[in-house]
Amino acid sequence: MPSLRFLTAGESHGKALIGILEGIPSGLHISAQDIDRDLKRRQSGYGRGARMKIESDHVEIISGTRWGKTIGSPIALSMENKDWKNWKDIMSPSNPPLPPFSKGGLGGFVTRPRPGHADLAGAIKYSQYDLRNILERSSARETAVRVALGAIAKEFLSEFGIKIGSYVVQIGKVEIHSSMLGGPISEKELLSLFEKAEKSPVRCPDKVASKKMIKLIDKVTREGNSLGGIFEVFATGVPIGLGSYIQWDKRLDGRLAQALMSIQAIKGVEVGLGFRMARHFGSEVMDEIFYSQGSRVSGQLSKGFYRKTNNAGGIEGGITNGMPIIISAAMKPIPTLKKPLLSVNVITKEPVEAIYERSDICAVPAAGVIGEAMVTLVIADAFLEKFGGDSINETKRNYDSYIDYIRKF
Amino acid sequence: MPSLRFLTAGESHGKALIGILEGIPSGLHISAQDIDRDLKRRQSGYGRGARMKIESDHVEIISGTRWGKTIGSPIALSMENKDWKNWKDIMSPSNPPLPPFSKGGLGGFVTRPRPGHADLAGAIKYSQYDLRNILERSSARETAVRVALGAIAKEFLSEFGIKIGSYVVQIGKVEIHSSMLGGPISEKELLSLFEKAEKSPVRCPDKVASKKMIKLIDKVTREGNSLGGIFEVFATGVPIGLGSYIQWDKRLDGRLAQALMSIQAIKGVEVGLGFRMARHFGSEVMDEIFYSQGSRVSGQLSKGFYRKTNNAGGIEGGITNGMPIIISAAMKPIPTLKKPLLSVNVITKEPVEAIYERSDICAVPAAGVIGEAMVTLVIADAFLEKFGGDSINETKRNYDSYIDYIRKF
Amino acid sequence: MPSLRFLTAGESHGKALIGILEGIPSGLHISAQDIDRDLKRRQSGYGRGARMKIESDHVEIISGTRWGKTIGSPIALSMENKDWKNWKDIMSPSNPPLPPFSKGGLGGFVTRPRPGHADLAGAIKYSQYDLRNILERSSARETAVRVALGAIAKEFLSEFGIKIGSYVVQIGKVEIHSSMLGGPISEKELLSLFEKAEKSPVRCPDKVASKKMIKLIDKVTREGNSLGGIFEVFATGVPIGLGSYIQWDKRLDGRLAQALMSIQAIKGVEVGLGFRMARHFGSEVMDEIFYSQGSRVSGQLSKGFYRKTNNAGGIEGGITNGMPIIISAAMKPIPTLKKPLLSVNVITKEPVEAIYERSDICAVPAAGVIGEAMVTLVIADAFLEKFGGDSINETKRNYDSYIDYIRKF
Amino acid sequence: MPSLRFLTAGESHGKALIGILEGIPSGLHISAQDIDRDLKRRQSGYGRGARMKIESDHVEIISGTRWGKTIGSPIALSMENKDWKNWKDIMSPSNPPLPPFSKGGLGGFVTRPRPGHADLAGAIKYSQYDLRNILERSSARETAVRVALGAIAKEFLSEFGIKIGSYVVQIGKVEIHSSMLGGPISEKELLSLFEKAEKSPVRCPDKVASKKMIKLIDKVTREGNSLGGIFEVFATGVPIGLGSYIQWDKRLDGRLAQALMSIQAIKGVEVGLGFRMARHFGSEVMDEIFYSQGSRVSGQLSKGFYRKTNNAGGIEGGITNGMPIIISAAMKPIPTLKKPLLSVNVITKEPVEAIYERSDICAVPAAGVIGEAMVTLVIADAFLEKFGGDSINETKRNYDSYIDYIRKF
Repeated sequence: MPSLRFLTAGESHGKALIGILEGIPSGLHISAQDIDRDLKRRQSGYGRGARMKIESDHVEIISGTRWGKTIGSPIALSMENKDWKNWKDIMSPSNPPLPPFSKGGLGGFVTRPRPGHADLAGAIKYSQYDLRNILERSSARETAVRVALGAIAKEFLSEFGIKIGSYVVQIGKVEIHSSMLGGPISEKELLSLFEKAEKSPVRCPDKVASKKMIKLIDKVTREGNSLGGIFEVFATGVPIGLGSYIQWDKRLDGRLAQALMSIQAIKGVEVGLGFRMARHFGSEVMDEIFYSQGSRVSGQLSKGFYRKTNNAGGIEGGITNGMPIIISAAMKPIPTLKKPLLSVNVITKEPVEAIYERSDICAVPAAGVIGEAMVTLVIADAFLEKFGGDSINETKRNYDSYIDYIRKF
Repeated sequence: MPSLRFLTAGESHGKALIGILEGIPSGLHISAQDIDRDLKRRQSGYGRGARMKIESDHVEIISGTRWGKTIGSPIALSMENKDWKNWKDIMSPSNPPLPPFSKGGLGGFVTRPRPGHADLAGAIKYSQYDLRNILERSSARETAVRVALGAIAKEFLSEFGIKIGSYVVQIGKVEIHSSMLGGPISEKELLSLFEKAEKSPVRCPDKVASKKMIKLIDKVTREGNSLGGIFEVFATGVPIGLGSYIQWDKRLDGRLAQALMSIQAIKGVEVGLGFRMARHFGSEVMDEIFYSQGSRVSGQLSKGFYRKTNNAGGIEGGITNGMPIIISAAMKPIPTLKKPLLSVNVITKEPVEAIYERSDICAVPAAGVIGEAMVTLVIADAFLEKFGGDSINETKRNYDSYIDYIRKF
Repeated sequence: MPSLRFLTAGESHGKALIGILEGIPSGLHISAQDIDRDLKRRQSGYGRGARMKIESDHVEIISGTRWGKTIGSPIALSMENKDWKNWKDIMSPSNPPLPPFSKGGLGGFVTRPRPGHADLAGAIKYSQYDLRNILERSSARETAVRVALGAIAKEFLSEFGIKIGSYVVQIGKVEIHSSMLGGPISEKELLSLFEKAEKSPVRCPDKVASKKMIKLIDKVTREGNSLGGIFEVFATGVPIGLGSYIQWDKRLDGRLAQALMSIQAIKGVEVGLGFRMARHFGSEVMDEIFYSQGSRVSGQLSKGFYRKTNNAGGIEGGITNGMPIIISAAMKPIPTLKKPLLSVNVITKEPVEAIYERSDICAVPAAGVIGEAMVTLVIADAFLEKFGGDSINETKRNYDSYIDYIRKF
Repeated sequence: MPSLRFLTAGESHGKALIGILEGIPSGLHISAQDIDRDLKRRQSGYGRGARMKIESDHVEIISGTRWGKTIGSPIALSMENKDWKNWKDIMSPSNPPLPPFSKGGLGGFVTRPRPGHADLAGAIKYSQYDLRNILERSSARETAVRVALGAIAKEFLSEFGIKIGSYVVQIGKVEIHSSMLGGPISEKELLSLFEKAEKSPVRCPDKVASKKMIKLIDKVTREGNSLGGIFEVFATGVPIGLGSYIQWDKRLDGRLAQALMSIQAIKGVEVGLGFRMARHFGSEVMDEIFYSQGSRVSGQLSKGFYRKTNNAGGIEGGITNGMPIIISAAMKPIPTLKKPLLSVNVITKEPVEAIYERSDICAVPAAGVIGEAMVTLVIADAFLEKFGGDSINETKRNYDSYIDYIRKF
């Protein structure tokens, strides 16, 4: 049995998005408002499309909590799509809409696949000629539920002093100041970067770069083009010992890589220095080991082993080493363009321009928030794997006794 | 039930490495010699350490095949560690060796963790003061079994015209010619790069770069330092429709990212253009869609949809799109250095130099071969998920009927 | 990746029950009405409690279908609890209800665990002193979603001529005529039993036994007691070759046993003759093998191997053998009794009588319907494992080609 | 990630059986001799065939332990088939044996499927005309590895005072005295039954019944027939709270049912009173709840809740309730008979007698030992799920703190 399981469901213009999360111990305080906060963060960010103005995501907790606390049961969330009222016919789960639907307009078949999306490969896989049957689920709207489930996992991890955040480090060719790259090594500095990012319209901690990014987005919007970028996710306070080298699929870096690469439009993932590691000698990039009777280990003031660098991004041999987890992801530019790309009508096989379905210009700030959710869910899973527990108190007892053990190691 | 499952076991200096692979249909021709070929490729490569001269890996098929063909049963492989005879006492699964062992020498406790390895985090996680109990399993020697299992999966996929290969594109700061980066789009060109790489001592298709890499390795060897690098893995002939966007963990890019990131020392993974995507406009990097009555789709001569570029690396929306899969991984420099790093004795807590255990200078060429194995296992899993089948003939019938369907789509 | 995955969520008196089912190919016709039919069957049956009159379950399809057909995406179902309006405060996911709640009544803590339920063990596991936090999820109401998901899987299997049904064979000490036990071997006879059962208030195909059962339920109702019983689930038209002996957890009988034993109150599961097998000699109970050029194999008119008996219940060596699957389950009497059992107050530790929460007298007829759902979900999973396919047409092509292969075997 | 994973491999007459078990914490004492003890128990039992005299199973620990203790790494076991030397050609994993093999004899194709075995269904599933390719893996010889892996899990659970045993309660029509059925409720009495069973050639605790069973086996041996029976497995000292009702597949009874039903020839599984429950009123069979300041809970002398009966077999609502787990399984008679059954040649389709391959007359005593292994593996998995821990000391700390919590509940 896995420690934490979750499934999501729902189409972009369907009635609602649904998520089920199972494995969170009982006794954890959860509120829809807390979840909504992350949903809002996901919807913000300079460069989002018109839809974000229509939808103001709100989650409803259907099950798994009572009187504000988890009871151990699966947590089901529902998020209504506010736009649903306009799509009831087109997206009806039951009967097809009546004519004059067939005359075209909103309800006509979507037949011009967008390069860069699942449209064509999905149509062939699932044997569909109306691409709406593909793009409704492959849409990144699905990530709203991931963010909601991740927000619950964040509440859980926060009980153990684990904090997860993200910030944007690159949009198009605009990068933050190199001194900020790779992440600082202290929780304090990371949280400070995070706070700066939260105030930036592009979730970038570097004020100068932020301005340039906004300017770039404006320009690209005018040109009908789109932008990608890079964001970093960090987790501080993660105890030594999550994940394992004993089997390939227990390595935490692998699990994090899958989680981030599974976000729509992500094409690259790095842990710590990542690709930059390849350019260095071994003597330059290893995080040497020190010991102090009074140093800080992983956010806990304690005697112990520590590092002065964090090139490894907090993971060695697939295991957390007590330093902050730092993981970056590269997002490709949004493939839905006003300035359309060449495509082929899936029915007639005639050359056409790809459809344009309302979209963002740049979603990197939002992707960072989604990245936080996925990283959180993976860490929470590995955390429960190690510490077990059916109630938050039990998990805490186990965790505390381990921290105590580390102190004496 | 997953389509394909595998577990590996075995310590680096234990008696043997063991692997079990389950889910390969019956009737597939498999031979130990074929597997050994990939094992040899893994052991080769300029920059490998002394051990590779001791071990010449040979696999023994213990179960799952009869008369050279699979019978549907789990395939168990065993690979003896030739060095075992020297480690029988130190690594005895049963009784501890008798004195004078305790006086030190080979058998003494390993107490000086190497930065960059699982040594310290593993010791704390598993509550061990003899780091040998960690490093024996966290060692990349374990990947020999992955390569062996991957070789079987390669045989399976080759029945469907799927070819998997890899080549090195960077060692230290030496890169191949930029024209070769990102992978060509045709199977023919990819296979040509692969053939060139197979002839290079560093598995690099660019002759000029190869020479520079060798020179660099020589220099770094003399300095007691180590090197990392980047390799690319490709898969051609992969049909449209493997993986899916319907749930985060079904996306093929995510699964591939986990598989590659799970290889020892890998710190970054890219699909297609990867991080370079972030620098481009949407209009520049999408693979536009074309259609021809007589074009080649994914290695099969057929009518159909095709692309003129492959920036996506063969995956859109988490699904294979018929173009070659191109995936890169960055390897950090080997963290075991002759020129030792600072560390701390796990028992006395005194500052020490990290131990030096016989090691490689540069293992990027080998990592590419391991990357092939992991990519192959993931694709084979997704392939069986889609096509099912308990005998190779059944899987072929299902596959053929799908290819036929695509032609008529 | 598993072929079919599902999770359910929801408390008995919460707002709604939620289910997500993933893995059903695209193009399958699904309607809420079809699902409701099975929901109604689950709610019927002589001996059900008052609640069944309150709730008339109706499913809403939230996602995964469009215009009446699946599109490959996860199918999310929601079933409102009609009773919710009376429980909004007591079961509020967010804030606790205000006083006068605390004065007792409906909203007071539930503190007297019922023997035979999860109440006490659950309270200790999840660290709860209000047993409502346990019994709301452990309640068999959860099975309504399983039935709904099973109804979808039934639609899927019916595309391949697979029919699943159930009937009650025992309530208390009243058994059906022994000639009906163990199941007939032909699809026709099984379906005839099923039809008879569907007309019986206790879902029992034997008219005489039906009457006795009803009489017994009446008597037991008057006495404030409860009854258990035994039901049989059958599946006809199942092709040879689902499940496997190659690993313990691939055996279909094991998977079916888990599925049935996982239904609330089930304490025993048998395949075919089951426990009666133990009393016989090997020569008496094996299903000998015959062959005919024109016989019926598993519902398909075809040449082939056949049996004249079905003591094995359609499974040999963990694999379907083409005969109907016959599997029975024993349900213990409902543990919630008007005539209360001895218990202990979880807070004061004083001896008390267990609480009585509105309940059924006998739920064996309903349990059979739930059994159908679980059996269906397991078979559909094994079916997709073998035949793969992302669209119903693809799965059909693969299935047809296999049936054709069997004919020529 | 599951807590405990294992895979087995190996053919009945192949070179060796292989097992990999992953998830056992570090620091657990394991020895091949301890494992061999259970292997010997599996091989014993009146009624076993000739092969058991050839094979005297001995396990070799290949990996995962050092100096007699686990190190957290996957444990790989190898068990040589002593008979292998006689089967090297017939069962060669690589090349087919040379003529005169093809003239028949040992090496000829096995073409006459045995009713009751996987032979025919397996041949069709895996597309084989030589049934040896099926029966070699479907053979119950595979269970030897399960017993070995289970023996390791037993060592693990014994660290927590959990004891697992089994005894035979029925062979053919001979049952033990009814007073012994269903299991006593105290650990002491269960262990006493177990000790008696261990001294009986048929592993039956009832001396009178034992003698009758032996006599029956003798008679049936002479007649060339075979026998089945029923065994019970118990587990004492299991803490309250393993398994869960929150999702169907987390229920411990379901998982145990799958585990037992997955043993070759098992056709029925019961928890506690099982099928007998169906005949009783609710008031008769629930285990009422009591509380005492000084009573024994689950083998630990402690204040707490307790029961005077154990009809539920230690599981309520899918969760352990602190009483001994009692689970029974019905084994069908061995389907390989000297007095052969009717069958059909899979190649010629002519009516034939089923082959006779050296076999047992009655394997119920052995099946009980296998049942212990499977029950142990399931409980160990659920135990680790709840208590986590990477070292035995960590798991113990977590367990102890939970037991302490229960005392104060």
